Amino acid sequence: MPLTPEIVGKLHEATGARNVITASEELRTYECDALTAYRAVPGAVVLPATTEEVQAVARICYQAHIPFVARGSGTGLSGGAMPVPEGVVICLARMNRILEIDFPNARVVVEPGVINLEVTGRVAPANYFYAPDPSSQSVCSIGGNVAENSGGAHCLKYGFTTTHVLALEVVLPDGTLMHLGKKTLDALGYDLPGVFVGSEGTLGVATKITLRIVKRPESVQTLLAAFHSTTEAGAAVSGIIAAGMLPAAIEMMDHLSILAAEAAVHAHYPDCGGLLLVEMDGPQAEVCALMEHIQEICRSQGAWEIRLAQSETERALVWKGRKAAFAALGRISPNYIVQDGVIPRTRLPQVLTRIGELSTEAGLRVANVFHAGDGNLHPMVLYDRRIAGQEKSAIALSERILELCIEAGGSITGEHGVGEEKKHMMSKMFAEPDLATMQRVRCAFDPQQIANPAKVFPRPRLCGEKLGEYTPHPLELAGVAERF
Amino acid sequence: MPLTPEIVGKLHEATGARNVITASEELRTYECDALTAYRAVPGAVVLPATTEEVQAVARICYQAHIPFVARGSGTGLSGGAMPVPEGVVICLARMNRILEIDFPNARVVVEPGVINLEVTGRVAPANYFYAPDPSSQSVCSIGGNVAENSGGAHCLKYGFTTTHVLALEVVLPDGTLMHLGKKTLDALGYDLPGVFVGSEGTLGVATKITLRIVKRPESVQTLLAAFHSTTEAGAAVSGIIAAGMLPAAIEMMDHLSILAAEAAVHAHYPDCGGLLLVEMDGPQAEVCALMEHIQEICRSQGAWEIRLAQSETERALVWKGRKAAFAALGRISPNYIVQDGVIPRTRLPQVLTRIGELSTEAGLRVANVFHAGDGNLHPMVLYDRRIAGQEKSAIALSERILELCIEAGGSITGEHGVGEEKKHMMSKMFAEPDLATMQRVRCAFDPQQIANPAKVFPRPRLCGEKLGEYTPHPLELAGVAERF
Repeated sequence: MPLTPEIVGKLHEATGARNVITASEELRTYECDALTAYRAVPGAVVLPATTEEVQAVARICYQAHIPFVARGSGTGLSGGAMPVPEGVVICLARMNRILEIDFPNARVVVEPGVINLEVTGRVAPANYFYAPDPSSQSVCSIGGNVAENSGGAHCLKYGFTTTHVLALEVVLPDGTLMHLGKKTLDALGYDLPGVFVGSEGTLGVATKITLRIVKRPESVQTLLAAFHSTTEAGAAVSGIIAAGMLPAAIEMMDHLSILAAEAAVHAHYPDCGGLLLVEMDGPQAEVCALMEHIQEICRSQGAWEIRLAQSETERALVWKGRKAAFAALGRISPNYIVQDGVIPRTRLPQVLTRIGELSTEAGLRVANVFHAGDGNLHPMVLYDRRIAGQEKSAIALSERILELCIEAGGSITGEHGVGEEKKHMMSKMFAEPDLATMQRVRCAFDPQQIANPAKVFPRPRLCGEKLGEYTPHPLELAGVAERF
Repeated sequence: MPLTPEIVGKLHEATGARNVITASEELRTYECDALTAYRAVPGAVVLPATTEEVQAVARICYQAHIPFVARGSGTGLSGGAMPVPEGVVICLARMNRILEIDFPNARVVVEPGVINLEVTGRVAPANYFYAPDPSSQSVCSIGGNVAENSGGAHCLKYGFTTTHVLALEVVLPDGTLMHLGKKTLDALGYDLPGVFVGSEGTLGVATKITLRIVKRPESVQTLLAAFHSTTEAGAAVSGIIAAGMLPAAIEMMDHLSILAAEAAVHAHYPDCGGLLLVEMDGPQAEVCALMEHIQEICRSQGAWEIRLAQSETERALVWKGRKAAFAALGRISPNYIVQDGVIPRTRLPQVLTRIGELSTEAGLRVANVFHAGDGNLHPMVLYDRRIAGQEKSAIALSERILELCIEAGGSITGEHGVGEEKKHMMSKMFAEPDLATMQRVRCAFDPQQIANPAKVFPRPRLCGEKLGEYTPHPLELAGVAERF
């Protein structure tokens, strides 16, 4: 259904005219998220300020069969917030209040537009923090984190967003308000907060989110270990986990990403083939004892230089280099694709070797930065768009790498989501009955499929549709996004 | 639909005649689980040995519109495995193989009939264990644990069953086989393992379950602290958590349950008003340091006796008393109701006081044993069935206690499930749109609602049914269980 002036009028009534954007040059701002390769111009962007306004907007879209896409800060890497052409974007930036801080129960209630790092900022004085820490945490929103089930370096020990979301107030696509989960642990009934977190905007819009906050550990130590190769570094990772230790973070960088990070932020990383960054936190007694053990393991696997950060400043610099690694690649390559795949930790050496071979075959450099502890790789394929055909082969290579992850018993995304970018690969991971059930679950929330349709699933499926039969979905015929 | 001889014949073909029970005296064995107050005699019990046999049985039931209930060891406390009268019970006791043990990735793949404690038994030689530890762990099955999202004393630190189930092979009610989740963490798509775990048999039958196993901690210390009252003990619990420590377990017992445990297993508990059992595990350095701190906190809250278990034997005895507490009540009361409710940890003192008042008002003794760390209460209402009207008031009291949990911002079940027992209370916890969405999710798996129908939800809802409208469900008209 087109976005008629009458409907725009209704949106004006719902949120106030000044919070509805329809001027084409302003709409361009919202044509993509951090995955800039896919773009589509929406018909309107609404900025509601309250749950009631979100409900009103949803009702308008539902009654007119107009698809909408919820958007946080637009830092997503899989195109999850890319608009439907001519559809509505519900931008939650104005819903950015921290509604409640309950220290005795270690709970915080926020609106979706609250910035990830702001939560920690607010609870830090009482010695708490919010654990999930995507590299974009200084700009990304909690609502976006919920949509993508965002991870981060410290999720090895603390778990992903889903571990930290206890309850949600959700506006269903028809405008109905529902409440998922409870402030207490182990809520009863189906674990709907679990389904909603990571549903990439396809089930509705979260308007209130109850988060768990964590007591800041007594002490933190961060270690840098330099190896000749990522294979050696990988063996050290296995050694650490096999010893039964659970560091707060185990990050690995290969030579190329070290060069990039150095060029960008001068983190004083040793110039080596494989760099391991291990952080332990907890009671002082524990951290000191285990750091000793970790250093032994690293040495035994061939670490030729080991450094313990001696101050908070040193520690911050170590992390600055790691978190800047993606952006830093701009220093050494005109263009690059950041990939996101998961493999069983034990397959690290084989997969890395194979990535090296594929990179050589394709004649394209691949930099590897990853959360080694939970086998979440971020291979980055470097290329130059100006050279004819190179972007095409870069995309081909990055997809080949994802297939490699699947072959190794892993998956095509750890924390960036499927979104627009990877939906065509879902059938490589899931059988038809699995995808069909997921889509029927979606229909339980969104019978009209107007909430971020045409994302995540290889093809939208009508809610009435039986397994096996094939009814083309309107959006499918329309053809959703233009690829740049 | 009745269970005709023709359908029984098909069941014979599906699993072999010897694995189909139809003799009424044998069927009686399956008329209830550990919640004996609700009973119903099934039309047939089938004992499949393979996934294919489960699929065949499901197809037969689906085609004939015959409801089925999956059953593990029948130790459930909410009547989740109670049959539908004249329906089919799928007993998974024969599917009891451990299919794969993958130490490098810390994963174990089991069939649903495997006994909880057997998993730990098999991985212990390599110094691993399976964390969720319901008191019934020596007899309950993993399949049942999955259905109820079972907890246990150590779930405070290690999390409930849902934290430890990574992937599932599931037979849908129509016989379709589907796969949920992955061996790796942070699987993509909707978190369907999360929905399935705790769905109390209403979404299908799990036939293969991939579990996470945990490295056994370097050291364990168990402390007993005797207080004058549960209020003092509760204050100590808050103190421990507020200090940022996360013990493996924090259990509390009141005077009545201490007496019962003593009478049953002579655990040598101090005779006190409130007993705290705190277990710390982890690296030796950590455990020793923190146990010191915990003892200080207990003393500062009025603990007049503190004992550290000096040997594995002593430790085992301490736990034996705690785990025997339910059964032990038989020593001091002819009948009792074990309840299961959750409250925010911070509300412990108020809620316990109020339970005491309600107990006096009703003239019935209430013993309290609970997982204090996560606010999961197990109040046990003692009564004598032979005294006219006493069972009725015992049930009324235990329901009043659950309402108290809801009023305190908690829930009506922590780990025992809703099942048959508490479905009528769901509307006190969830608004109609919340329940409706849950039931639509159920329809995504089970459009005919033949998998354990008439459980969990206050009333079955037909899949086509719109919110607000009311179409009586066949089972509702039939009237499901007889109350004894």
